[in-house]
Amino acid sequence: MEKMEKIKKGVGELNKTVMEKTQKHLDNLTKPQGSLGRLEEIAKQVAGITEKEYPKIEKKTVFTLAGDHGIVEENVSAYPQEVTPQMVYNFLGGGAGINVISKYTGCKVIVVDIGVKEKIKSDSPNFKDKKINFGTKNFFKEDAMTKQEAIKSIETGIELVEDEIKNGLDIVGTGEMGIGNTTPSSAITAFVTGKSVKIVTGRGTGIDDTLLNNKIRVIKEGLKKRKPNSKDGIDILSKIGGFEIGGMTGIILAGAYFRIPIVIDGFISGAAALLAALIEPKVRDFIIASHYSVEPGHKIILDYLGLKPLFNLDMRLGEGTGAALGIGFVDVSLKILNEMATFESASVSKKI
Amino acid sequence: MEKMEKIKKGVGELNKTVMEKTQKHLDNLTKPQGSLGRLEEIAKQVAGITEKEYPKIEKKTVFTLAGDHGIVEENVSAYPQEVTPQMVYNFLGGGAGINVISKYTGCKVIVVDIGVKEKIKSDSPNFKDKKINFGTKNFFKEDAMTKQEAIKSIETGIELVEDEIKNGLDIVGTGEMGIGNTTPSSAITAFVTGKSVKIVTGRGTGIDDTLLNNKIRVIKEGLKKRKPNSKDGIDILSKIGGFEIGGMTGIILAGAYFRIPIVIDGFISGAAALLAALIEPKVRDFIIASHYSVEPGHKIILDYLGLKPLFNLDMRLGEGTGAALGIGFVDVSLKILNEMATFESASVSKKI
Repeated sequence: MEKMEKIKKGVGELNKTVMEKTQKHLDNLTKPQGSLGRLEEIAKQVAGITEKEYPKIEKKTVFTLAGDHGIVEENVSAYPQEVTPQMVYNFLGGGAGINVISKYTGCKVIVVDIGVKEKIKSDSPNFKDKKINFGTKNFFKEDAMTKQEAIKSIETGIELVEDEIKNGLDIVGTGEMGIGNTTPSSAITAFVTGKSVKIVTGRGTGIDDTLLNNKIRVIKEGLKKRKPNSKDGIDILSKIGGFEIGGMTGIILAGAYFRIPIVIDGFISGAAALLAALIEPKVRDFIIASHYSVEPGHKIILDYLGLKPLFNLDMRLGEGTGAALGIGFVDVSLKILNEMATFESASVSKKI
Repeated sequence: MEKMEKIKKGVGELNKTVMEKTQKHLDNLTKPQGSLGRLEEIAKQVAGITEKEYPKIEKKTVFTLAGDHGIVEENVSAYPQEVTPQMVYNFLGGGAGINVISKYTGCKVIVVDIGVKEKIKSDSPNFKDKKINFGTKNFFKEDAMTKQEAIKSIETGIELVEDEIKNGLDIVGTGEMGIGNTTPSSAITAFVTGKSVKIVTGRGTGIDDTLLNNKIRVIKEGLKKRKPNSKDGIDILSKIGGFEIGGMTGIILAGAYFRIPIVIDGFISGAAALLAALIEPKVRDFIIASHYSVEPGHKIILDYLGLKPLFNLDMRLGEGTGAALGIGFVDVSLKILNEMATFESASVSKKI
């Protein structure tokens, strides 16, 4: 709890003075002012986060946190639970979507077992065994985890960032894998934003109408039974889950604390951002939303947090795929800031 | 005219058989079916264009065509005309937005003088002198160019692609520079789509309300005076201009003919796509729209052509910047197709 409290209290604000200087430079580059749109906004935001007039991102890491969910007992997913560890091995073997996209945008992928139901055996340097428990409990019947486990999952996320800073870390992406994890994410989204469960709940990996209606019912009743405290992110996390959501909450808090831009992925990352913002609202300024997921609750989360994503490619894979692609956009925006000629250096006339 | 006629008649259709095979492979990759959304669609489209089940793009070229416009006499732009050649030198010096973004996505930039008002002096290997004339004429007072010049501009675009194919060309992006060129683009857009001049006309590099109203008036009256034949792309091009628009029309026609995917940039590229589709409607299947420009006419063009762009970053720079970024997306989509593991190869269970 101490670690989390320290991090939470240490989250600052964007450095407006640096942002103004960066804006001035952007306006001097050989293009009509503002004509690179959101790329210019992102460059300015990163300047405000890092407090560097000309930030660069060289060390890029996406954390893909894997965890299982007791709620799958209630028949809420299109895929069997064994897919969670199978996909972890796929991440470690380099064959998943996140591997391919991260390779393209130059991101390291760190795969973390934070709560998979079975033991993961790997000696890959990209693997971290941070298992808190062998999956959460079924929140339809009991609390997903203890309060201690909830805190531990958040602090695990913080530690992942702390450890990676030692290797150099200029930007961080959040990602996850966990069969069934759109169910707790929908529950958290409905509960925190106040929107109806029906509106925020989608088909996840691809369930049919019958399973979707069942999923909505399970979430509604689960929330009624668990009765989390709406002002307490840790209480919500412990009652609903899951470990990877808590881990990403910690990554977001730590990114903000250490002034490292955090690019969030889709719906499950969004649920973690909701919890992080409930714990410390100032984290929002340090987050860059990559995309709108197909999951209907994702837009509701981003609107609630005041975040506008960079693209919308109808993706719904998770793993950090959107974040890895989003990091590419941030990279481009900073290369524009750092590499373009100014009107003066290129002898180009200004506006009449 | 012969060259253009040959190219036009040779435009084929997407290869559906190959697309089905590619779709089958996409569905076997370790992800829920369709969960990479538009990235999967793009991979499939490129398979249909190239007739390769597993296409790759290694040789990527963005053509940035520069031309001047007689219509600037009517006070329609925020920047002086001298900026066109100044920016050409900036492209050749590597300091412009297109250089920075192309470097990131691995595109070669070929800078073409197709109608700049002054002589461009450069011995850069990336420069091509294909000047048709020293700027177009003022279409408010007379035809922008002769019919012969219009055909020559289109055939110049075709030749650019033909020449580049000798160096290897897997994907092509369209880009342009020309002070005043949103004015003919707005005129072409209004005329071809049937929408009002007021709706399709925007602020270009950043004109104020007075200049915007003047621009709208100039376009309206110019169109009335010129009376192009609405079914004849060459007539529209010769009466309104400009050389870079004609050149990009040729690039699009040639890309379709040679079955090379064409990624179009913003509003001016869109106007060229309108003309190309008027000359040969089948070209539309070979085009990938990169983004929505801030110029209001751009969305109207893409809707008219049935094209959905990949992203919207509120960009309005031109040069090919959106196309260069879009080529990055195409690259990622093909890496997903070619590099991801299948359910079988990664021993991952399928949907229940």
